[in-house]
Amino acid sequence: MKEEKGHQADRRKFLVGMGIAGAAATATLASPALAVAGNRCETKWDQEHEVVIIGSGFAGLAAAIQAKRLGAKSVVIFEKMAVFGGNSAVNGGLFAAPNTALQKKEGVKDSPERMAADQAKAGRGIANEEQLLHVAKRANEALQMTIDAGAEYFPYLQQLGGHSVPRTYQTTVAVGSGITQPLLNECKKLGVRLVNRTKFESLIFDDKGKVVGAKIREGYYFGRGKEGSPVNVRAARGVLIATGGFARNVGLRSAQDPTLTAEVGSTNPPNATGEGLLELFNVGAVPVHMAHIQTGPWASADEDGFGYVSNYSIYNFAHSISVFPKTGRRFMNEIADRKTRADAQLQCRDDNGNPLPPVTITSYEHAKQHPTMKKVLKYGVGWKFDTVEDLAKHHNIPVKALKQQIEEYNGYVKKGVDEQFGKPMAKAKDKYLKAPFVTVRNWPKVHYCQGGALTDVEARVIDSSTWKPIPGLYAAGEVAGGMHGVSRLGSCSIPDCMVMGMTAAENMMKS
Amino acid sequence: MKEEKGHQADRRKFLVGMGIAGAAATATLASPALAVAGNRCETKWDQEHEVVIIGSGFAGLAAAIQAKRLGAKSVVIFEKMAVFGGNSAVNGGLFAAPNTALQKKEGVKDSPERMAADQAKAGRGIANEEQLLHVAKRANEALQMTIDAGAEYFPYLQQLGGHSVPRTYQTTVAVGSGITQPLLNECKKLGVRLVNRTKFESLIFDDKGKVVGAKIREGYYFGRGKEGSPVNVRAARGVLIATGGFARNVGLRSAQDPTLTAEVGSTNPPNATGEGLLELFNVGAVPVHMAHIQTGPWASADEDGFGYVSNYSIYNFAHSISVFPKTGRRFMNEIADRKTRADAQLQCRDDNGNPLPPVTITSYEHAKQHPTMKKVLKYGVGWKFDTVEDLAKHHNIPVKALKQQIEEYNGYVKKGVDEQFGKPMAKAKDKYLKAPFVTVRNWPKVHYCQGGALTDVEARVIDSSTWKPIPGLYAAGEVAGGMHGVSRLGSCSIPDCMVMGMTAAENMMKS
Repeated sequence: MKEEKGHQADRRKFLVGMGIAGAAATATLASPALAVAGNRCETKWDQEHEVVIIGSGFAGLAAAIQAKRLGAKSVVIFEKMAVFGGNSAVNGGLFAAPNTALQKKEGVKDSPERMAADQAKAGRGIANEEQLLHVAKRANEALQMTIDAGAEYFPYLQQLGGHSVPRTYQTTVAVGSGITQPLLNECKKLGVRLVNRTKFESLIFDDKGKVVGAKIREGYYFGRGKEGSPVNVRAARGVLIATGGFARNVGLRSAQDPTLTAEVGSTNPPNATGEGLLELFNVGAVPVHMAHIQTGPWASADEDGFGYVSNYSIYNFAHSISVFPKTGRRFMNEIADRKTRADAQLQCRDDNGNPLPPVTITSYEHAKQHPTMKKVLKYGVGWKFDTVEDLAKHHNIPVKALKQQIEEYNGYVKKGVDEQFGKPMAKAKDKYLKAPFVTVRNWPKVHYCQGGALTDVEARVIDSSTWKPIPGLYAAGEVAGGMHGVSRLGSCSIPDCMVMGMTAAENMMKS
Repeated sequence: MKEEKGHQADRRKFLVGMGIAGAAATATLASPALAVAGNRCETKWDQEHEVVIIGSGFAGLAAAIQAKRLGAKSVVIFEKMAVFGGNSAVNGGLFAAPNTALQKKEGVKDSPERMAADQAKAGRGIANEEQLLHVAKRANEALQMTIDAGAEYFPYLQQLGGHSVPRTYQTTVAVGSGITQPLLNECKKLGVRLVNRTKFESLIFDDKGKVVGAKIREGYYFGRGKEGSPVNVRAARGVLIATGGFARNVGLRSAQDPTLTAEVGSTNPPNATGEGLLELFNVGAVPVHMAHIQTGPWASADEDGFGYVSNYSIYNFAHSISVFPKTGRRFMNEIADRKTRADAQLQCRDDNGNPLPPVTITSYEHAKQHPTMKKVLKYGVGWKFDTVEDLAKHHNIPVKALKQQIEEYNGYVKKGVDEQFGKPMAKAKDKYLKAPFVTVRNWPKVHYCQGGALTDVEARVIDSSTWKPIPGLYAAGEVAGGMHGVSRLGSCSIPDCMVMGMTAAENMMKS
């Protein structure tokens, strides 16, 4: 990709100190190093801010707001793309938090410890439980920040896969921009400087190994080979890297999992290429859990990206059945954790081993409760059927087996116990499967990178050679790795991003 | 650790080019960079060699020999420790290869494709199958290199866990030094320069981003705070990083898996700390599979390190049973792949959740065939019993259940089919379990890091920003990551190290 060439050029400049000549005149001479070494050149600082934030997703926006609220005079956010919000703006807009107003209203007993425990279970024993608990304890505070900024949520909770109770809010626009837009407006109100088309290139250190600034490129056009002009930005209190994951960096993801080739879809926008993360590794950050890449089991086999089906499925799985077309039988707990479900879906193949996407069946009366159902049907990525016969014919499912499966499942609804796959039936109460039906076809897409740079519970980046924080350097959101372990639970990324962004800002303001 | 402090100082020097002043006078001025940038200082090369190899384990030694055989005039190996051989010298000395003389003698049908397929299966779908096949095709050639150098092997094959046929050679000294010593002698004969107590610090690049040398420290004393003196070594054809894994870097391993604390044992020597790998990440190598760290299911709960029990168990598992002391029952296929067995062993706990190591039971008449049995008994890390009653009493196993289990198992030996766990019974043929017995207690130890820096099939290090090889830079052995995926099969590391080392040397000599 073109923008990667740009990054490569940057990288090589940073090898100057290791012996590369080409860019000595730019990077090295523009650093404080030689001021001491050769005593004949100074860093030319083009800008100075108290708090420098790279990336305008949930983490960067929450950090900027928190820094301003704590009295920061100048806070800047640099965004690589033309539009602000990053991958956050197109995510599901699902926000998990314990002890919220809606949990009180719905009488749900929950606690930060319970939410962290649910996540640790999905993490398969290698999650960072200290970070999970830290985020769970402050998730409600982060949720309130979005509500104060004007974010709107449906007046009911959802119970997503792997969560032991309903604790998930959903934006009324059913997408992350329902949160990023209000937070952006709040940033503007507070006087945060927002600069788009600006690419992070590298970090600048002082003579004690502290991060004192960043080299960025203004006037960068993603994917168009226009790399922009270098600018040295001084950061009085520190730099926060909030550049997100690498779901769209095919080289990096397929190095971890050879099956994640360019042919595999992703819910992320094309700019989720992870250069910020790679730069962190260049300065000694610890790579953690890079091989744990999450695919979304609620994605559609019939549309690109996150699309309409993802949120539709996330909402409906709790009171729907997914069946393997060949047998007409269920093959998983429709609200198990994401990895469990994606692994099960990937087994759904025809006799030649080609994908035969499972069909998720929902009663129309329940499906229509979700605002995106109309779009799912309008854009032909879902279908409505008046009879089970029509449904079976369209999807080439043995009708007798399917009828039998639906009858069995309705028995579980009645009992409140799923004897087939042990799905929690709280949200399925009285929701019997009956015609007319709406169906979608699910197939996993690359959604989230559990791996990244190791940070501590204070959002400080750990140095792989000293195991101490690198002074002045912070990372929050998907670029940070290890918090969630093998599998992240749905709706736990927004609280992670926002709380760790807020935490980073608080530490910068203390410094 | 002291040596990590030393490394940290090194790292910071390398941030000079990114803006650190402290060491500008050393690292930056000693680089070609300023020759171009300021045109007033040259790299002071203290040494020059055609081929520079960092690390004296299997990979480094095989590379040195191959380079010499291909006509290299000057080849140098730098070893961090006082003694040559690294972790290789204390490994199991087990060497898997297809189509060998012993397979012909024993009438075993095998192929490189079959060996690679066995490994890919243990890799759980994310192994680098191209590299696995490349190594399997040349494994016999590497084995021959060791035999030509004077390595001695037992005149029979072993069938290790996860291998579908017997294909593993074992050195007569039952340890890796039975290979590293002959290879070291061969290196001396060929005029390879071997320098101990020399620590790799960093790479030196030319103005085109090609690796043209390395900064090393001569007179380095591991763990004693004596960092040695910096020396700039020019490498005319390239630098091979063969510095091994990070099993003893507690920070790095526990960042990947919080359960791998300092309390967890390791089969590796204390110097397996992975600084070579961390330096590769500093110059843009791709971190791959870092979270996949292998524990050895044949290690002992009663001795430190690789010890005597490991090879004893590896040899005997095929015709032994492992039982959970609380029940007296088997709980795994004793020759399943390492991860499957280690995971099963870690389930063996008392009512308080504390480890209750499984007991591996072997007939004395078969156990005594392995040369280390005497030492296992002599050093009290294994026990001999004349009756099953004595055995059960000593290990606090319910005797009735144990007798029943032994009787059942002997039925499987008779049938040639393990109806309990599907263990391949070829090597158990006619080997009935009967008194007197020898027992050991197994518990997993950190043994091998599947993760490391991404290389291609030519042993070239891939750049994370360009996805092209970094010119002049090679990595081989455990420091390279991704070949084996989730779990490496036993006796597959030596062929991996040697073949990739040979491959790196061949590419350097072509350059």
